[in-house]
Amino acid sequence: MALENGEKSEERSGPTGKYKVVLMLRVMAILATAAATIVMALNKQTKTFVVATIGTTPISATLAAKFHHTPAFVFFVVANGMATVHNLVMLVVEIFAPKLDYKGLRLAIIAILDMMTVGLISGGVNAAVFMAELGKNGNSHARWNKICDKFDSFCDRGGASIIASFIGLLFMLLITTFSIIKLLKPISHHNLP
Amino acid sequence: MALENGEKSEERSGPTGKYKVVLMLRVMAILATAAATIVMALNKQTKTFVVATIGTTPISATLAAKFHHTPAFVFFVVANGMATVHNLVMLVVEIFAPKLDYKGLRLAIIAILDMMTVGLISGGVNAAVFMAELGKNGNSHARWNKICDKFDSFCDRGGASIIASFIGLLFMLLITTFSIIKLLKPISHHNLP
Repeated sequence: MALENGEKSEERSGPTGKYKVVLMLRVMAILATAAATIVMALNKQTKTFVVATIGTTPISATLAAKFHHTPAFVFFVVANGMATVHNLVMLVVEIFAPKLDYKGLRLAIIAILDMMTVGLISGGVNAAVFMAELGKNGNSHARWNKICDKFDSFCDRGGASIIASFIGLLFMLLITTFSIIKLLKPISHHNLP
Repeated sequence: MALENGEKSEERSGPTGKYKVVLMLRVMAILATAAATIVMALNKQTKTFVVATIGTTPISATLAAKFHHTPAFVFFVVANGMATVHNLVMLVVEIFAPKLDYKGLRLAIIAILDMMTVGLISGGVNAAVFMAELGKNGNSHARWNKICDKFDSFCDRGGASIIASFIGLLFMLLITTFSIIKLLKPISHHNLP
């Protein structure tokens, strides 16, 4: 019992080895999801179209494409924002509160929260990517026309944001895998002869 | 060491207590995701519209709404199908191969696969639900008209399928939480005086 506690505190004492890798992964996940959130949240394009001509005077209409016109993009921003906050909190907890624990469930709680964040990012990015695909290609069966031919830079920035979020999802999958494997560690210590 | 092995084999010997709960949850997740897969995959509605009238003769066109016209619904079917297969395999492994192990990583591998399935279902169901929302309400900014007023039973069945998938996601979140907590067990055994 005493030995085990010793092992545990040693394991959690500072950022070394695999532990450092997870911290690095969290920082990169934060960068990816924060970039995705900001780029999408600021995504807006205003364009003026000529809708009619009276005599020689063109009548034009100004249309704006904004992310919050599409519910999927709103969810995308919320999901990536929440994932960023989650990883920031985990980073702070792992660096500044290595002893913080609740009934020995610290590592399990981290793994469960990580797992839920995987679900959250995956939901947000997949909702956005299929909406973006619709904007790019349209859907002739439903008579939904593509809009990316008109709002090209809106679509480019949206695409970049989605790619950043997919990278964040990849990091999050790795982080959660590490969090789960970390739970195994104490057993393998005991299995040593 | 010997004691620990004894504990482990006892823990894995048969479906008792919490173990039974996870098996029940897996069965219910299978039912939910399988229902979602089948209902969506068979979702099709053919409708005949009168497009013009020449004299007194109506000219009609027949339109069909099928799930595979929308990429998000195709991904939804694939994701729910894969989740069903995952849970079936896990169920078979847990019932018929309780000793199957790879370097003591059995429980960790199950938890990691469960976590990835959470991501998969979440991606599929969120992609589908935002596409369904578009079909139901349309998007005036992008000039995408709603189609659920024309294809009502297609939308009803799609909605039922999405609800089933969300239930499957809920079960999958619970299962993964249990899988992660299960990894903690050996430690708490050792912590007992």
